[in-house]
Amino acid sequence: MGFIEKLAKISIKNHSLLCIGLDPDPALMPEKIGVFEFNKAIIDATADFVCAYKPNIAFYEAMGHEAVEALHKTMNYVPKEIPVIIDAKRGDIGNTAKAYARSLFDRFNADAITASPYLGYDSLEPFIERRDRGVFILCRTSNPGAADFQSIPVQIGKRKMLMYELVAEKVNEWNKYGNLGLVVGATYPEELKLIRKRYPQMPLLIPGVGTQGGELKQVVKYGVDKGRQRTIINSSRQILYASRGKDFATAAAKAARELRDRINEY
Amino acid sequence: MGFIEKLAKISIKNHSLLCIGLDPDPALMPEKIGVFEFNKAIIDATADFVCAYKPNIAFYEAMGHEAVEALHKTMNYVPKEIPVIIDAKRGDIGNTAKAYARSLFDRFNADAITASPYLGYDSLEPFIERRDRGVFILCRTSNPGAADFQSIPVQIGKRKMLMYELVAEKVNEWNKYGNLGLVVGATYPEELKLIRKRYPQMPLLIPGVGTQGGELKQVVKYGVDKGRQRTIINSSRQILYASRGKDFATAAAKAARELRDRINEY
Repeated sequence: MGFIEKLAKISIKNHSLLCIGLDPDPALMPEKIGVFEFNKAIIDATADFVCAYKPNIAFYEAMGHEAVEALHKTMNYVPKEIPVIIDAKRGDIGNTAKAYARSLFDRFNADAITASPYLGYDSLEPFIERRDRGVFILCRTSNPGAADFQSIPVQIGKRKMLMYELVAEKVNEWNKYGNLGLVVGATYPEELKLIRKRYPQMPLLIPGVGTQGGELKQVVKYGVDKGRQRTIINSSRQILYASRGKDFATAAAKAARELRDRINEY
Repeated sequence: MGFIEKLAKISIKNHSLLCIGLDPDPALMPEKIGVFEFNKAIIDATADFVCAYKPNIAFYEAMGHEAVEALHKTMNYVPKEIPVIIDAKRGDIGNTAKAYARSLFDRFNADAITASPYLGYDSLEPFIERRDRGVFILCRTSNPGAADFQSIPVQIGKRKMLMYELVAEKVNEWNKYGNLGLVVGATYPEELKLIRKRYPQMPLLIPGVGTQGGELKQVVKYGVDKGRQRTIINSSRQILYASRGKDFATAAAKAARELRDRINEY
């Protein structure tokens, strides 16, 4: 079963569009807990409320080998019915892109990954060609500097649009196997609305609700697809660090359930 | 001593603008040799002919933990006077960008790194703020798909330019500490010419000579700065795999010396 089917199935089963970002931060985690132990407790507590998990590999790399091993263990621990998106934002050329595809899809066994578009089609091809895996390409990100390049007016023949619109258009063109999606931040609801309207079937990964301040109600209104099987709304810190005490897992479960329900309510 | 000074010093001492890409590929390496052992032999054989080494981290990640450890060992093994650029093409937001900066600059102790511009200023800030380290931002890459986004016409107010020109302009603006450079592929000599003319002092990392087919003569003519201290011409496979036999290190030394001398001749 490919990523898209897996996502659809669990979205329906768990009645959820919520993805939890598994981003371990020692400064926010309860004391004396290992990375895998932390992730395991979070997964145990929240697996009924999510449609996906999304570890950002940077946090693991920053902590070194043991944390990278903990990511491997986490990948194995997540119930098979729940897809895992490794947030890696990779983008490199030829042989190097192939090496990243091997690393993320084969070594880590990610169901999907995130990738950066700046190097163009051939930098994405080794990911795209893995038809059973998902590839979310950065389109309009949730950070303040996103506008520096993503919102620049571009011209294609006589047509004018913004850079992120061109990225979306190209990704849609390249989506011959149906395994591509876009990353569109919750903090830019107008852009989200435009993309969803233009590509009603495109899987969207939407980070930036919660800590980053994206307005949930608008995100749901503008971003969710009709079938409710192609939208992934990510929250990380708001859930992981709902409590810093011993009750962190129950607090995370409560926060995840509430966020899932609020999404469904809207 | 910061990256820029280190680069200038060794460029002069070794009379070299040549950087060797340390990209281990088991399919091309001599049989039964470990990654570190291979890198060590290459470094021993070529350290007098280079101004930098550039391992692309993807190849190490693709081979797993032992290879990543071999990269750590390689970083420690390179003579202190030769800067090492980790080619990582990272780009992520806020906390995550900080995590990548910690990983590459503190864990791996890279003198410089490569980064992707698509997410804008705040995604680069944690790298930029490390004033003693270098940051090479992707501008016009050497691959066929580079044109998909990098050569799109953009409009800034009334000014028209191409996307990669805007990236160069922004990077130049952001270069308050003098530690930023650009990646401009050898395969696009006209673009290289334009960038070097416009930013005579900007450090340029130029991949794509050799296997990728960049014309060396034009690259030198168009790309090298007047002081010959801010240009890094990278070659990987042409040198690393000059021979697949037991003589791989002497063959690499010969190839490196010849390439360095040809660059100097032009």
